[in-house]
Amino acid sequence: MYPVITISREFGSGGHSIGKLVAEKLDIPFYDSEIVERAAKATGLDVHFAEEQGEYSSRLDRWFTTLSHFGDPQDQLFWAQSELIRRYADEGPCVIVGRCADYILGECGHLTLNVFIHASTKYRAARVLDKYGETSVSIGKRLDKKDRSRKAYYRYYTDREWGDYHNYHVILDPSMLGEETCASMIVQAAERMNELEI
Amino acid sequence: MYPVITISREFGSGGHSIGKLVAEKLDIPFYDSEIVERAAKATGLDVHFAEEQGEYSSRLDRWFTTLSHFGDPQDQLFWAQSELIRRYADEGPCVIVGRCADYILGECGHLTLNVFIHASTKYRAARVLDKYGETSVSIGKRLDKKDRSRKAYYRYYTDREWGDYHNYHVILDPSMLGEETCASMIVQAAERMNELEI
Repeated sequence: MYPVITISREFGSGGHSIGKLVAEKLDIPFYDSEIVERAAKATGLDVHFAEEQGEYSSRLDRWFTTLSHFGDPQDQLFWAQSELIRRYADEGPCVIVGRCADYILGECGHLTLNVFIHASTKYRAARVLDKYGETSVSIGKRLDKKDRSRKAYYRYYTDREWGDYHNYHVILDPSMLGEETCASMIVQAAERMNELEI
Repeated sequence: MYPVITISREFGSGGHSIGKLVAEKLDIPFYDSEIVERAAKATGLDVHFAEEQGEYSSRLDRWFTTLSHFGDPQDQLFWAQSELIRRYADEGPCVIVGRCADYILGECGHLTLNVFIHASTKYRAARVLDKYGETSVSIGKRLDKKDRSRKAYYRYYTDREWGDYHNYHVILDPSMLGEETCASMIVQAAERMNELEI
């Protein structure tokens, strides 16, 4: 059986597109933003708030506080997302993008193929500008802010370092390799795990 | 043309074997410990000393000193190795293991495919014990010491972090994927760069 494939990614690196290609090639389900939308419904939170908070910490300083955040909407959302991610994984092989899925599934003993996608700043800037256009904030600052937020969110919920190679089986840079090759390489890794019936 | 492929690796992770497989599959030269042997000859240093110092810093504190190390045998060896690495890369596509080749070739504008190999402690311990046997030092300490030395050596000569994902196009874990699959994935990446004629 193919493994559940988790994809973490730098903002604008193409992790979403690569994950989608992998899911198409392996003919397995693909989950990304629908996780946060379904989690918002489950918790009764506004979907726009959920989209903003579902993977990003806008409160970088919360890591340093010792206050309990029980009842915090972002925590509620995290637990609802975790529940969904575990359910998807229990249903069978799939691709899950972001949302600490590598950690959430590892914690409950699920064997996963954990992938991290990063790319050069030039490549990411071009992709983000193409998709979302210019804003009053410089593209460099936009990339940096999103990545710092993802890093803080991941650290807060997992106590691990986002992007630390120890946490991933495959790390790829599509600015050098292209999305199609990255997807094929991930498929090759998934097929190997399928052969081994790990 | 295939790129020059540099392989950095955790001690015992199988980076050497994977690099060799890649070189065989692509039918290109493979350079590992012969670099340090040839550099030793070029500098007139004892080959055993060179093997010990050719990629490892036993003086972790030298990074923190502000003294000039011009004339230091380890520096002489580094420059001799750098010279050889540049020469190999100029001759055409090849696989070069360790010795900061990613940084050395990047500094002189060579386009390389930079790979990092890491693996679980259990996998590395089994490989190292199989290859070198037991010693009076615990296997955990042996793995840790070698990696800390490589990290310090890399940081000293490159001012970069060994294992930081930004420095590599492909990072793989053969304890999950196996050496053969890792080699095939690297070949796929090299073939993509060959097609693009980057």
